[in-house]
Amino acid sequence: MPALDVAGEFETIERLLKPLAHPEWARGLMDDVAVLPSRPGHDLILTKDAMVEGVHFLPDDPLDTVARKLLRVNLSDLAAKGAEPFGYLLSCFWSERCGWPEREAFAAGLAEDQARFVVHLLGGDTVKTPGPVSFSLTALGWTPAGRAVSRAGALPGDLVFVTGAIGDGLLGLRAARGELTLEPERLDALAAHYRTPTPRLDFAEVVRDFASASVDVSDGLFADLTHVARTSGVGVVLNLNVLPLSTAAQAWFADRVDPQLSLEDLASGGDDYEIAFTAHPRHEENLRHEAERRLLRLTRIGEVVVGDGLTVTYDGRSVVPARQGWTHD
Amino acid sequence: MPALDVAGEFETIERLLKPLAHPEWARGLMDDVAVLPSRPGHDLILTKDAMVEGVHFLPDDPLDTVARKLLRVNLSDLAAKGAEPFGYLLSCFWSERCGWPEREAFAAGLAEDQARFVVHLLGGDTVKTPGPVSFSLTALGWTPAGRAVSRAGALPGDLVFVTGAIGDGLLGLRAARGELTLEPERLDALAAHYRTPTPRLDFAEVVRDFASASVDVSDGLFADLTHVARTSGVGVVLNLNVLPLSTAAQAWFADRVDPQLSLEDLASGGDDYEIAFTAHPRHEENLRHEAERRLLRLTRIGEVVVGDGLTVTYDGRSVVPARQGWTHD
Repeated sequence: MPALDVAGEFETIERLLKPLAHPEWARGLMDDVAVLPSRPGHDLILTKDAMVEGVHFLPDDPLDTVARKLLRVNLSDLAAKGAEPFGYLLSCFWSERCGWPEREAFAAGLAEDQARFVVHLLGGDTVKTPGPVSFSLTALGWTPAGRAVSRAGALPGDLVFVTGAIGDGLLGLRAARGELTLEPERLDALAAHYRTPTPRLDFAEVVRDFASASVDVSDGLFADLTHVARTSGVGVVLNLNVLPLSTAAQAWFADRVDPQLSLEDLASGGDDYEIAFTAHPRHEENLRHEAERRLLRLTRIGEVVVGDGLTVTYDGRSVVPARQGWTHD
Repeated sequence: MPALDVAGEFETIERLLKPLAHPEWARGLMDDVAVLPSRPGHDLILTKDAMVEGVHFLPDDPLDTVARKLLRVNLSDLAAKGAEPFGYLLSCFWSERCGWPEREAFAAGLAEDQARFVVHLLGGDTVKTPGPVSFSLTALGWTPAGRAVSRAGALPGDLVFVTGAIGDGLLGLRAARGELTLEPERLDALAAHYRTPTPRLDFAEVVRDFASASVDVSDGLFADLTHVARTSGVGVVLNLNVLPLSTAAQAWFADRVDPQLSLEDLASGGDDYEIAFTAHPRHEENLRHEAERRLLRLTRIGEVVVGDGLTVTYDGRSVVPARQGWTHD
């Protein structure tokens, strides 16, 4: 193939993106638009997250995992709202380093996760940038009408839960950067979590049925629970002692000198993509049952109180974390 | 305000973007998602276009016109499909040059055009980039169910029309770069067209009622008509002699040594954001009537034939243009 075409927009769309397109609604990526029929009785849930090389992923991260992470972080937002995803639009800002093999890897990563999560490409565009390779993805999902869970519904007396484990996002970043000393298989597990986190789509329906407020843990548990508290106009009390850790994180934690500070690090690190949510105590048994059915860890990490913002406790005392959260901006 | 907050994501969302948010569906930009109720009997039309400083706009373009162009080029895609826009999601990739005044200007540009085109911000995110300031916008609109006009419907015997004038996109870029010699008011008009083109939303309904195929002229008239021809499986014959020019473009054209080559330049330049469409001859009178009612210039520029791809004629002869279109990638 001639060099100009190889990395061109037309070839990229024709050979790499068209195979990913929704068979009907994407119009073969030939029409500048996607056309989505109405689904009466349902709300359309939309989210849009961007990623920049050197900011949201490492310069040497392979583009297939970048593609998968891009899709997954957006699907995680939908899962936390109780939505079932079906499609996405994509803008690719290709940099100089994105030749044909890199674009192929990117498309292969998308293809793999499209199949896994049953979503299709609906549209978008590709442009060149003299800056770092960047992406913006708009993900779409459905909920039954009026059933999307917001951040604003937490009530005093509710319990606070989180799926999975907290801290693998931060430790995974450090592992991927070669900054951690652990057994190789632990490092691999952590780096894999950082590169391809798992959106909790299998729990979305449960969140929709039982949660009063919900958020995905992307900015860090502290920051995201603070969002829930502020938006709901309540206080959230988080018990740091029960923070759920993965096996790899436990191995790292066992060597720490200051356990409290280490837990604070993990709870402010972000990139976990678990669901943190509040629910009335009467739902606790159902929630545990649904989590068990899905082989999903579910931890009760706190409670909602009359108040304002996040309170963190450790060993029964209220503590003030050194930093509240991670932000990319 | 402390320097860190001034250009931070929280302040940008809270102070600049929240006032732009849809009063209901955007959830106050506090929920990671937009929630859109179904509109039975209608299709949702989605489009997504990105812009990069130095590629799609000039490094010294003020960010208020960049914001307006970003919105307008996306609304132009919707207009060409016959859709009525109502909202958009936005990703901002802020560079070092984007301090608070630049972000304010960007938001002010959005506010101005939101009011003009009656659309609202639904969601998105803002991130930092070490590269050039970039944006990705996903625009949403409605058509009655099944009524979105595609590129694929042109039939032999149809006529080809274009709204407004062709070539101001290219000449406007040259004017904005200071590369043209014309009277100042002409240069201003051309640069204004380049910086803030007018999406033909007032003609969207007419296109929906009468067009067999339609496209907005963004890549260049040659390239976009070629898309229509290929997607529809027909030939399109374009008469270069009747290419509609603006007053400013006519002034430029009057001084050209090679009129054919000059018209080819204008028809391959792109960034015009007019609607090029095909329609059965029986609709010509209605189309002219609807255009006149809207004080909109409408020019019959060619016809659809049995064949393959675009044929360009000049002075009754078939000619081969030096270049077919403009691409950013």
